Amino acid sequence: MRIAVDAMGGDYAPGVAVEGTAQALADFPDLNVVLVGHEAKLQFYLEKYGITGHPRLKLHHAPEVVEMRELSSTSLRAKKHSSLTECARLLKSKEVDGMASAGHTGAAVAATKVLVRTLPGIDRPALAASMPRERGRFLIVDAGANTDCTVTNLMQFALMGEIYARYLYKIEHPKVGLLSVGGEDVKGKELTKKVFPLMDRLMPNFVGNVEADAIFEGAADVLVCDGFTGNVLLKGSEGLARATIYWLKEVMLKNPLRMTGAKMLSSAFRELKNYGSSELIGGAPLLGINGICIIGHGGSTPLSVRNAIRVCSECVKFGLNEQIVESIQKAGCTAAELDAMEHTGA
Amino acid sequence: MRIAVDAMGGDYAPGVAVEGTAQALADFPDLNVVLVGHEAKLQFYLEKYGITGHPRLKLHHAPEVVEMRELSSTSLRAKKHSSLTECARLLKSKEVDGMASAGHTGAAVAATKVLVRTLPGIDRPALAASMPRERGRFLIVDAGANTDCTVTNLMQFALMGEIYARYLYKIEHPKVGLLSVGGEDVKGKELTKKVFPLMDRLMPNFVGNVEADAIFEGAADVLVCDGFTGNVLLKGSEGLARATIYWLKEVMLKNPLRMTGAKMLSSAFRELKNYGSSELIGGAPLLGINGICIIGHGGSTPLSVRNAIRVCSECVKFGLNEQIVESIQKAGCTAAELDAMEHTGA
Repeated sequence: MRIAVDAMGGDYAPGVAVEGTAQALADFPDLNVVLVGHEAKLQFYLEKYGITGHPRLKLHHAPEVVEMRELSSTSLRAKKHSSLTECARLLKSKEVDGMASAGHTGAAVAATKVLVRTLPGIDRPALAASMPRERGRFLIVDAGANTDCTVTNLMQFALMGEIYARYLYKIEHPKVGLLSVGGEDVKGKELTKKVFPLMDRLMPNFVGNVEADAIFEGAADVLVCDGFTGNVLLKGSEGLARATIYWLKEVMLKNPLRMTGAKMLSSAFRELKNYGSSELIGGAPLLGINGICIIGHGGSTPLSVRNAIRVCSECVKFGLNEQIVESIQKAGCTAAELDAMEHTGA
Repeated sequence: MRIAVDAMGGDYAPGVAVEGTAQALADFPDLNVVLVGHEAKLQFYLEKYGITGHPRLKLHHAPEVVEMRELSSTSLRAKKHSSLTECARLLKSKEVDGMASAGHTGAAVAATKVLVRTLPGIDRPALAASMPRERGRFLIVDAGANTDCTVTNLMQFALMGEIYARYLYKIEHPKVGLLSVGGEDVKGKELTKKVFPLMDRLMPNFVGNVEADAIFEGAADVLVCDGFTGNVLLKGSEGLARATIYWLKEVMLKNPLRMTGAKMLSSAFRELKNYGSSELIGGAPLLGINGICIIGHGGSTPLSVRNAIRVCSECVKFGLNEQIVESIQKAGCTAAELDAMEHTGA
């Protein structure tokens, strides 16, 4: 098993990426890592985290970095040898089994789409982000890879999300829901109204329309939506969580009695923070790419990077992509088949 | 000032609506209320809250109720004399200056659109929901009245939201942002990319694209989006807030020390709950309708109803609709003008 790690991706690169890689090498003895980044800039951290010359570590030089504020559309052309692009090249040439990056999400989508391409029959890849709910977690597919989607895309996101949820949540038959503005079958926007009957017919675990509040109560394990809406739900939740912490601090620091109470709850608040943390999952896979690609949060910690590497290798072992291709074919949901259905209105 | 109140709307109707009306009549001496509902069913509550025969209260009989699970599209035809439809009729005939309902949102949109119609130059009405952010609040326009929107719709939502925010938040120049998946100008979906340059050119207070996490930090006072995305952000936030309370209880009840700490913080938690409460605003206006219409949450309390009535009367006094028409005309943003621009690509 060989995983490429984008050493220059993320807000705290390359330190965090190298530290996470060191943890992964120590914890998973069957794992080989290719660290992709500016070699000279990596030496200090390789030394610091004690993995210089590690037998299961290889370095791959990439002189450039895609910065967070760059445009994904131009980053690929402008920086032909960025750490991200080089990771995608290693994945394409099968020199690695998977890649993990906490870098620019849009650029990672663009680089893998163009260089690695999608799986046979898949029109577009989707980012599958795991979010906490009252008990357990749920998956948003797509969480932001495609801002404008077709019926074909949403149907394929549903099938791909189902397979990934089977691995991630260890549920044999994950409930798949369609994000909408009303629980009833007929509610929704044009796109969701069109895809609803298709999902209803082709997916045995389809639970129908799911509203954004019900998903936090466990209405579905996989929430299917276009990437614009999914990204708003994901980022909105992050924003509200931060605002809630802000409000909590505000009300708790108002008088000495409350401050004492807050101190007694400090371990409880630490636990609460873990509910929202994605450190244990490490990142979101880009489902549908012809190779495993895990994209981490820009603010990834070393533990996140370690777990992104773990999830990446586990997806390879699980045969995620083989299962996706099989499921798409079995359901008669290749891009060509779905496009034909859409046009004939079948 | 005369406001129609849908007595049968909301999860706890008609009790809550009558109690809220009683509070409003007591608190606002210049206010007249027309309670619209099943007269026989109202008597008990009128008695209970001491407003039987109140000099500023009139009853208007409506034999039917639109149930929450009904389809908005058919409710209008199926129930010609529902409390909601009768409120809209009173508004249309100018027998009242405004209406307030905690009933079926979709049915309220349909009834007012068909019976009361939109303001001159306005293509579609938008629901303007106020949400809490770290400090203060922000407005989502549209929060769910229109699932599929055009450039014309979004541009008009922005202008209408600006006027309403001026009233609601007492800000002379509210910052208007376009909900998107990236802060940069070029990010977004087809619709937002098309409306961006128009807003940039026509609105002096336009702050550009705003991501769903940044809005909770105060990136804008008015967040413009299609009603599908806005509804997902609104409902998703409600769901996450409930999940957070669930998690808080879970971690706080784990041992006696934490339980003691939680008890010391009980007043702080009550304050925290108020941050998220919309009771003080009472409801969201349906902007762009040719008459003031405030739509409350299905779970409205008497205080919410009282404040929905207050906001309704204040919007009338503020001249909300007159200002909307003036602003739309001044900006050259009537539906006809915008549609022409869109087609000529100007």
